[in-house]
Amino acid sequence: MFHHSDELQYDVTVEEPDPEFAKLLQQAIGGAEGEMRVALQYMFQAFAVPADKGEYRTMLMETAAEELGHIEMLATAVSKNLQGAPEADRERAREDPVIAAMMDSGQPRQALSAGLHAMPVDSNGVPFDGNCVVASGNLAADMQANVMAESTGRLLASRLWEMTDDPGMKDMLSYLIARDTMHQNQWRVVLEEAFEDHMPIPGSFPQEEENQEFNYAFMSTHRDDREDPEMPWTQGESPDGKGEFSFTDQPGGGTADLEAVIEEMHNEVN
Amino acid sequence: MFHHSDELQYDVTVEEPDPEFAKLLQQAIGGAEGEMRVALQYMFQAFAVPADKGEYRTMLMETAAEELGHIEMLATAVSKNLQGAPEADRERAREDPVIAAMMDSGQPRQALSAGLHAMPVDSNGVPFDGNCVVASGNLAADMQANVMAESTGRLLASRLWEMTDDPGMKDMLSYLIARDTMHQNQWRVVLEEAFEDHMPIPGSFPQEEENQEFNYAFMSTHRDDREDPEMPWTQGESPDGKGEFSFTDQPGGGTADLEAVIEEMHNEVN
Amino acid sequence: MFHHSDELQYDVTVEEPDPEFAKLLQQAIGGAEGEMRVALQYMFQAFAVPADKGEYRTMLMETAAEELGHIEMLATAVSKNLQGAPEADRERAREDPVIAAMMDSGQPRQALSAGLHAMPVDSNGVPFDGNCVVASGNLAADMQANVMAESTGRLLASRLWEMTDDPGMKDMLSYLIARDTMHQNQWRVVLEEAFEDHMPIPGSFPQEEENQEFNYAFMSTHRDDREDPEMPWTQGESPDGKGEFSFTDQPGGGTADLEAVIEEMHNEVN
Amino acid sequence: MFHHSDELQYDVTVEEPDPEFAKLLQQAIGGAEGEMRVALQYMFQAFAVPADKGEYRTMLMETAAEELGHIEMLATAVSKNLQGAPEADRERAREDPVIAAMMDSGQPRQALSAGLHAMPVDSNGVPFDGNCVVASGNLAADMQANVMAESTGRLLASRLWEMTDDPGMKDMLSYLIARDTMHQNQWRVVLEEAFEDHMPIPGSFPQEEENQEFNYAFMSTHRDDREDPEMPWTQGESPDGKGEFSFTDQPGGGTADLEAVIEEMHNEVN
Amino acid sequence: MFHHSDELQYDVTVEEPDPEFAKLLQQAIGGAEGEMRVALQYMFQAFAVPADKGEYRTMLMETAAEELGHIEMLATAVSKNLQGAPEADRERAREDPVIAAMMDSGQPRQALSAGLHAMPVDSNGVPFDGNCVVASGNLAADMQANVMAESTGRLLASRLWEMTDDPGMKDMLSYLIARDTMHQNQWRVVLEEAFEDHMPIPGSFPQEEENQEFNYAFMSTHRDDREDPEMPWTQGESPDGKGEFSFTDQPGGGTADLEAVIEEMHNEVN
Amino acid sequence: MFHHSDELQYDVTVEEPDPEFAKLLQQAIGGAEGEMRVALQYMFQAFAVPADKGEYRTMLMETAAEELGHIEMLATAVSKNLQGAPEADRERAREDPVIAAMMDSGQPRQALSAGLHAMPVDSNGVPFDGNCVVASGNLAADMQANVMAESTGRLLASRLWEMTDDPGMKDMLSYLIARDTMHQNQWRVVLEEAFEDHMPIPGSFPQEEENQEFNYAFMSTHRDDREDPEMPWTQGESPDGKGEFSFTDQPGGGTADLEAVIEEMHNEVN
Repeated sequence: MFHHSDELQYDVTVEEPDPEFAKLLQQAIGGAEGEMRVALQYMFQAFAVPADKGEYRTMLMETAAEELGHIEMLATAVSKNLQGAPEADRERAREDPVIAAMMDSGQPRQALSAGLHAMPVDSNGVPFDGNCVVASGNLAADMQANVMAESTGRLLASRLWEMTDDPGMKDMLSYLIARDTMHQNQWRVVLEEAFEDHMPIPGSFPQEEENQEFNYAFMSTHRDDREDPEMPWTQGESPDGKGEFSFTDQPGGGTADLEAVIEEMHNEVN
Repeated sequence: MFHHSDELQYDVTVEEPDPEFAKLLQQAIGGAEGEMRVALQYMFQAFAVPADKGEYRTMLMETAAEELGHIEMLATAVSKNLQGAPEADRERAREDPVIAAMMDSGQPRQALSAGLHAMPVDSNGVPFDGNCVVASGNLAADMQANVMAESTGRLLASRLWEMTDDPGMKDMLSYLIARDTMHQNQWRVVLEEAFEDHMPIPGSFPQEEENQEFNYAFMSTHRDDREDPEMPWTQGESPDGKGEFSFTDQPGGGTADLEAVIEEMHNEVN
Repeated sequence: MFHHSDELQYDVTVEEPDPEFAKLLQQAIGGAEGEMRVALQYMFQAFAVPADKGEYRTMLMETAAEELGHIEMLATAVSKNLQGAPEADRERAREDPVIAAMMDSGQPRQALSAGLHAMPVDSNGVPFDGNCVVASGNLAADMQANVMAESTGRLLASRLWEMTDDPGMKDMLSYLIARDTMHQNQWRVVLEEAFEDHMPIPGSFPQEEENQEFNYAFMSTHRDDREDPEMPWTQGESPDGKGEFSFTDQPGGGTADLEAVIEEMHNEVN
Repeated sequence: MFHHSDELQYDVTVEEPDPEFAKLLQQAIGGAEGEMRVALQYMFQAFAVPADKGEYRTMLMETAAEELGHIEMLATAVSKNLQGAPEADRERAREDPVIAAMMDSGQPRQALSAGLHAMPVDSNGVPFDGNCVVASGNLAADMQANVMAESTGRLLASRLWEMTDDPGMKDMLSYLIARDTMHQNQWRVVLEEAFEDHMPIPGSFPQEEENQEFNYAFMSTHRDDREDPEMPWTQGESPDGKGEFSFTDQPGGGTADLEAVIEEMHNEVN
Repeated sequence: MFHHSDELQYDVTVEEPDPEFAKLLQQAIGGAEGEMRVALQYMFQAFAVPADKGEYRTMLMETAAEELGHIEMLATAVSKNLQGAPEADRERAREDPVIAAMMDSGQPRQALSAGLHAMPVDSNGVPFDGNCVVASGNLAADMQANVMAESTGRLLASRLWEMTDDPGMKDMLSYLIARDTMHQNQWRVVLEEAFEDHMPIPGSFPQEEENQEFNYAFMSTHRDDREDPEMPWTQGESPDGKGEFSFTDQPGGGTADLEAVIEEMHNEVN
Repeated sequence: MFHHSDELQYDVTVEEPDPEFAKLLQQAIGGAEGEMRVALQYMFQAFAVPADKGEYRTMLMETAAEELGHIEMLATAVSKNLQGAPEADRERAREDPVIAAMMDSGQPRQALSAGLHAMPVDSNGVPFDGNCVVASGNLAADMQANVMAESTGRLLASRLWEMTDDPGMKDMLSYLIARDTMHQNQWRVVLEEAFEDHMPIPGSFPQEEENQEFNYAFMSTHRDDREDPEMPWTQGESPDGKGEFSFTDQPGGGTADLEAVIEEMHNEVN
């Protein structure tokens, strides 16, 4: 079960409110590379861990709860970037520089739907989509998904860091980037410690049942027949240590050769 | 640009049509772990490769075109699993065992919308969603996304392989599982060859700018203060070789402390 | 503006309630081929007609309001197919044959979310999606979209007609199929009367500005160079009467040749 | 910030695993009436509360964290309903009664994508959609949204309660229904204590600026002119105490009267 | 069934076309707080009313048809805000100030997809989503959903009213705000008249079956054990008149304690 | 199966990079009128063609592969419109004019998520949605869908052509517009050659089974009884040659007359 504290996980200050940056921050909240995704991803992965592997459940929940705190930090950062407009000298809302900037830069829903606050949407206002949450029941596959999520997450945070020079925002992002560094390493160490010999994932599939002619062959689909370009992926030992790369063309397997379907479907083919 | 041939990439035969399996195969077509996702993912990644790294563009396009052929194979497999119902002795479509099975097993749209053929949807009929395509502009992050996609893809194919005993379907899946083995290895070898020292991703972010106190610390969020559990992720060298794991609590950073927002937003707080 | 009457547009009776059919009917309500789509499509098209073409606005609104009545009819049909289960002899809901059939056949939300009534979703429970509504501002393009919508709509209704033998449902579908016949003809007559010489759509684009080498050439993308198959789409006059079909290969246009992007994007290519 | 404990918030036991019920429970996790929605809704509402109204922020966060624990309970219930199939006597997965039941009842992704565990989707497998989260920045509107969410939530839980007779599931649902009772009352008491005189919401809009002719008139849109039916919504004092109900027709406001739009849009109207 | 008239429901005039405002108005058409949502919501609620409660069906349909007229008004307002650009002195469309403003402010699809007209999308161009329509089969829950919809709807209209000073738009919004006032009162009066003693919703659930320890207890999830803050939601009678508020901690219910799942799922946990 | 070549299908050059145009081009990639839609639509249609109609499968695949090449061209055009910003004199990314323009014009994800490259999204950043792909199993209906797709596609390309004066972009669009001309004609010629007597679609439905009173009657839904306006859709022969248009009112079919539903649904109606 979950608990909360009044404090944020880390300081969130904004020296100079910037409505355009408030819009960009939404990508780190509700986007495919964002914190809602990883918080839910680690949570659902934890929910599926069997009792005899409690250390993984604990690890995943520790970080899931941490990511919830990142959503809170980023939502606070959005609100602070939308505050602070001087109230004087306005005759109507659109003369408010915050609202004007928001409308010019394309995220009107932070005003219209949320009253100048954060939303569970990405930087284009597209709602958060549970489809990007990966919890496969297979911890090795899950760890790969987590390394990937932290890679695109740290990339996003780095790009955001380049796009502001507000010292408070730089400091917050410097913290979030550091956490992404930790998490990339954290998931990788599990992969290396526990699942190194599980490659290719899932390691439990009886590999002798897979097609033995094409499981380590780079397949060229180029229109022209080409020679083996002699790249690390066309020759040499494969990273899983279980095969030798080769180079091949598509085998080809006859035409689809479908029958006509039943009359009641009203499929006219002429 | 793209070309096609009349042949399928590999044989697709179905001995005994199975409408329920036709429904399951949709996950491998239009699902988050499916072939539409990887075909488009590798394509968009290739589109972003600069001219001086042509070997990566080529490699990505070779495999993108291969994955297009997998969509074709799987769509053919769906059609074949929905064919072959004897046409005699039916008075209406629902007495057709194919259609009856389809409706019982919950994927009516293969009949209603596609006339007993494949659709760009997942096994629940949820339309393919471009949101799961990752093409970040950063090849190291893209390779991580690709290893992950092939991991969940091979896991899905393995589960499908367990759920059929049709020899034709087993053989087709055995081929697809082999290709997933190759692709996992293919993307990993690029990571190892070209980006080994780019960890944490993105390697181009000046790591001294990230918070130095929390970039290699496992953060416990447990309600109770806990001792370092002395796990591989709380002590020892980090996999990127750039830090030493430690164990910490959430730092805490003051409360959010928001101002009231401007009057025109009509934000009543009482 | 809009008005309503107490009566349905046409009789809706169900002799023998059929929960599976209630699920299938959802496709005709909230699916891509359904009535919500056309009702909204004709409405938004009408909203965009300029004042000097009032006859088109009127025609579109007449049919938009008719389609709203079809939603009402189909929703009523859903409710009636979910009613009538004998209340005696049940100890819990799942022993209710209606609910049991619903759960077996995969549309549990008609019970869980709607209390055994219709919802604005398709036959898989995927919510209605405004993305399938076409109102382009160009009436010729809109009419094409309408002919298409009524074609897939009549196809769906025909398939539904095959899947029931309840006399009430057959009669209702016979009416809806008749209306789709009318609407296909209605939109086509506008195309033929008003826009015949507007092909290709939009007719207002100065056709001399389009590439003159490839505007009537069938382009083969087959891997192997092939001969002109001499089909109606590779030779002879084009249906718009403005060109002569020919047969060609893809022209080819150099490689993409992208520069490396700016440093702040952190796009590593190795 | 957030914390977690090892324990679930309340006992989750399953006497007899029931894969169909596992599917139904998904509606309470990722559906529009589910716990992901309320957890995120209360969280985003809390994030927007200004510092001088800390008691509301605290209340919202207390309950947001509680709802996170409900997701955990329900995910556990899903896993337990998918466990327990005897492993003997099976030659392939589809002979496993759990998997067979899952496929018959239409939620194959709990097997294919999650390895027999919970997912952030609804009972039809439609991914959780951030669009259903309401956090408007206006606490009175938010409280209305919360009463509504707990009403449909308790309705869903009641329907689920009717559909199982597993004592463990009955007990868990009895707890969740009790919490929905509390939460309906909790949000209502805030409305009554703090916002009673804010009706109509938002109370801060200067009500003299709204149209004074139509702000308390029930508008009949019936085709036929009708007499006032003398219902509680056509006469008597309005619940906000600020008006007297009356009965009227639609006023009518001229035709839309649009100009033709600019040529470059290629809007053909014939 | 439905009918229409040529007139709009109320005047829609625009003195000075404003493309940015055209974009904002989309939120009131296709957004979660918009008119498409309420029109469809009241319609689907009406479709589910049993014959012996005809007065509710009528009331819901009266207002559903009224809301359809609001969509028409708003779509007209969008078109008028995108008209009126002087046609002279342009060399290409982007020099058209309307199109330039549209592209600067981020809603290019009103031009690209709709030829400078309205679309069934929100202010960010996200398509209308049937998921936000609530029709639960339970009229008390539906009424709560309706009060909520009119609360966020009136809030949105109030914010839009602040963002324009065009007299025509102010007048149209003043009318729509008045209607939202009426509708909030209309749904509330039904709740108060017919369902007052149905709280908590659904009133038909046998309340003695819900957990009696936690149904009126405010549950603190704070990390630190806290004292009862003595707020209206922790003590005193509950608004439904059926309980007395108290203050408690989370009970705690053992760990999840999952078994390992079956082998064929290929769930590796190491 | 599929193949690729290194070359683009046609030249893509950009004289003056224009980040706003890069955003608009996304509509032609991932929008409802875009190339992803038609590429997948023709592909899935081809996948469903039975063996004895190979010429249609071939034709559809030829054009599907061509459209894949259009996605590549457009993605290249996006990248080139986002390149070329001078690297000097910048202190931070937002001073980069490309990034500044991108953020001002509302498509930040081309930077944040894709590193200044194309994405599978529309011009508002809404992900590509498989729901717009039509492959009905009925070739006549499919051809109608294809004529429609090429109509809105050519309309979009025409509007884009008006919005740029970059010679390279004009030339690329002139090519794409030409191809849309060809494809409109190509699908129309199939309709005319093979399916002319299949109207109304599906031609295989026994037309005597449709309601004979309303299948060629224009139905007025106007509030006021109106006279036949004597338009081409109210009199004269119907385009399918099988009926004579007439003019009628809505027939009316009694009220919905629903029973109350079963108790376990907890549907309170008061």
